[in-house]
Amino acid sequence: MSSSEFSIIEEFFTLKSDKGYRPVLGIGDDCAVLDVPSDKQLAVSTDTLVENVHFLPDSDPELLGHKVLAVNLSDLAAMGAMPAWASLSITLPAIDEAWLSLFSKGFFSLAREHSLQLIGGDTTRGPLSITISIMGLLPKQQRLTRAGAKPGDGIYVSGTIGSAGLGLKKAQLGIYDTADKDLSAYLKPIPRVALGNELLSVATSCIDISDGLSADLNHILKASCVGAKVWSEQLPLERSVRQHIEKIGDGLWPYSTGDDYELCFTLPKQVNTGLMDKLQPYGITKIGVIEKGKGLRVETKSGELLTLNKGYDHFDV
Amino acid sequence: MSSSEFSIIEEFFTLKSDKGYRPVLGIGDDCAVLDVPSDKQLAVSTDTLVENVHFLPDSDPELLGHKVLAVNLSDLAAMGAMPAWASLSITLPAIDEAWLSLFSKGFFSLAREHSLQLIGGDTTRGPLSITISIMGLLPKQQRLTRAGAKPGDGIYVSGTIGSAGLGLKKAQLGIYDTADKDLSAYLKPIPRVALGNELLSVATSCIDISDGLSADLNHILKASCVGAKVWSEQLPLERSVRQHIEKIGDGLWPYSTGDDYELCFTLPKQVNTGLMDKLQPYGITKIGVIEKGKGLRVETKSGELLTLNKGYDHFDV
Repeated sequence: MSSSEFSIIEEFFTLKSDKGYRPVLGIGDDCAVLDVPSDKQLAVSTDTLVENVHFLPDSDPELLGHKVLAVNLSDLAAMGAMPAWASLSITLPAIDEAWLSLFSKGFFSLAREHSLQLIGGDTTRGPLSITISIMGLLPKQQRLTRAGAKPGDGIYVSGTIGSAGLGLKKAQLGIYDTADKDLSAYLKPIPRVALGNELLSVATSCIDISDGLSADLNHILKASCVGAKVWSEQLPLERSVRQHIEKIGDGLWPYSTGDDYELCFTLPKQVNTGLMDKLQPYGITKIGVIEKGKGLRVETKSGELLTLNKGYDHFDV
Repeated sequence: MSSSEFSIIEEFFTLKSDKGYRPVLGIGDDCAVLDVPSDKQLAVSTDTLVENVHFLPDSDPELLGHKVLAVNLSDLAAMGAMPAWASLSITLPAIDEAWLSLFSKGFFSLAREHSLQLIGGDTTRGPLSITISIMGLLPKQQRLTRAGAKPGDGIYVSGTIGSAGLGLKKAQLGIYDTADKDLSAYLKPIPRVALGNELLSVATSCIDISDGLSADLNHILKASCVGAKVWSEQLPLERSVRQHIEKIGDGLWPYSTGDDYELCFTLPKQVNTGLMDKLQPYGITKIGVIEKGKGLRVETKSGELLTLNKGYDHFDV
């Protein structure tokens, strides 16, 4: 890390929270040094967001700082892990202190909510992109993977589906209304960390919806060697998304829109009411059931059964 | 991670080594899960390399796969940590299987040498850049930092200085001779992992030379609140670098060239001969001494004393 890189990281991204697991050695040396509690395992995920691919040019830096961290926290949530540490690599065309200051504000506001400590990073010159490597903690022997769904299990999602996709459409049209629910879902997703942690010992599988419900649920089905039926009638949709579906005449639209960052998970057929009472405050909805026969079948409102296998794919756009 | 991203990672970057610390859960889920041995701490570093900034356009992908990992391993070496795990994020303009295959070859060849396991990653579309987040292991309570150099300590470097800088000049001129030592130093640096590990309990400070000897040694001086005198006569230089210095008439040139990835470290004034016998095979050279007075002073061959504070800086170019 060169001297001015270091000073950027030092100025905008030094530890701003005393909560959480403090590193033995934080930002400013060749490595950070971390003490992982002896009763914990480490969950690690890395995600890159690139301008013009994952976010629109001239995105609001404060919202971007939130979103890039939210996307990574969402991966921890899907594993049932509690956030602990992250490192941040920013590639940007030139030093822009105002931009960095706002980005940092958005990033740390969310980091503090999750007692996440920034332990290092790297700034380089180049086309705008951001990579976060995030680390969370799991009790030994426990984890929430994509493999484990069994025929008969119920399929659930948190929140609503398709709102972020509609938000993206609005953002592309230049609509900028911070009170708009869809725009907010797209620009400021809420990672479902607490729900993921709650699911850790009860869900049979879990994934976060980043590439669209059909693509992500298909990952569960593939990893678990099962199939599924989903009832379109049961999909939790905002009224604006329902209206959009009617307008474009495509009831399958919400299955292929990305960026929701809700959790999709499966629970055993028999779930005690105590557990459901605990999970309901997270706004979960049962949308289908795991079946033995491979493939994702969607029962439309008119009773048709369609097979869905695709979602959003960066290289297919 | 979207489906085709996943399949790229799966195809080119799945585990190719049984040596090392196998992850509890590797590539293919939302997170990797790692068990850190209870007697160890984790050393973590993240570095991004961007085309046209850190490497030339149309760089040989196999050499690039080696170099991007070498740069990260060098950070672990500087901390005295033994490599364990890494995640790899590649942003590339389009899927290029031949490129990915060669990149993967270079990456894994070096990873295997260090029993490093790839635990995850992300591929996205965009201008070519690569981010690695690397994790190494350290015995509890031990680490090799930049802070700790004391007046009287000797200053040492491994290998030779300036060769990579000269190699970059040759590469920019289109010279491509794999037998050329300077080009090799630039294109295929050797991370000094074993030396770093050897230094863990004996060196008072350590850094890897990525931004140039003066910049990196200045990091040690700043972190340790000391100064230094370095004797230019003692700098270990290849004959080609000596010739280059003579040609351009600038004896300070090797202090400001980056990319050497050698270690610069300090040892106490009194070092027993047993230790020196152990370290000599790594090709180390004493180049100066830590002093109380702040600043980096270089004694030139003619006996002049100059102060040096700068090195290579991505944003200053």
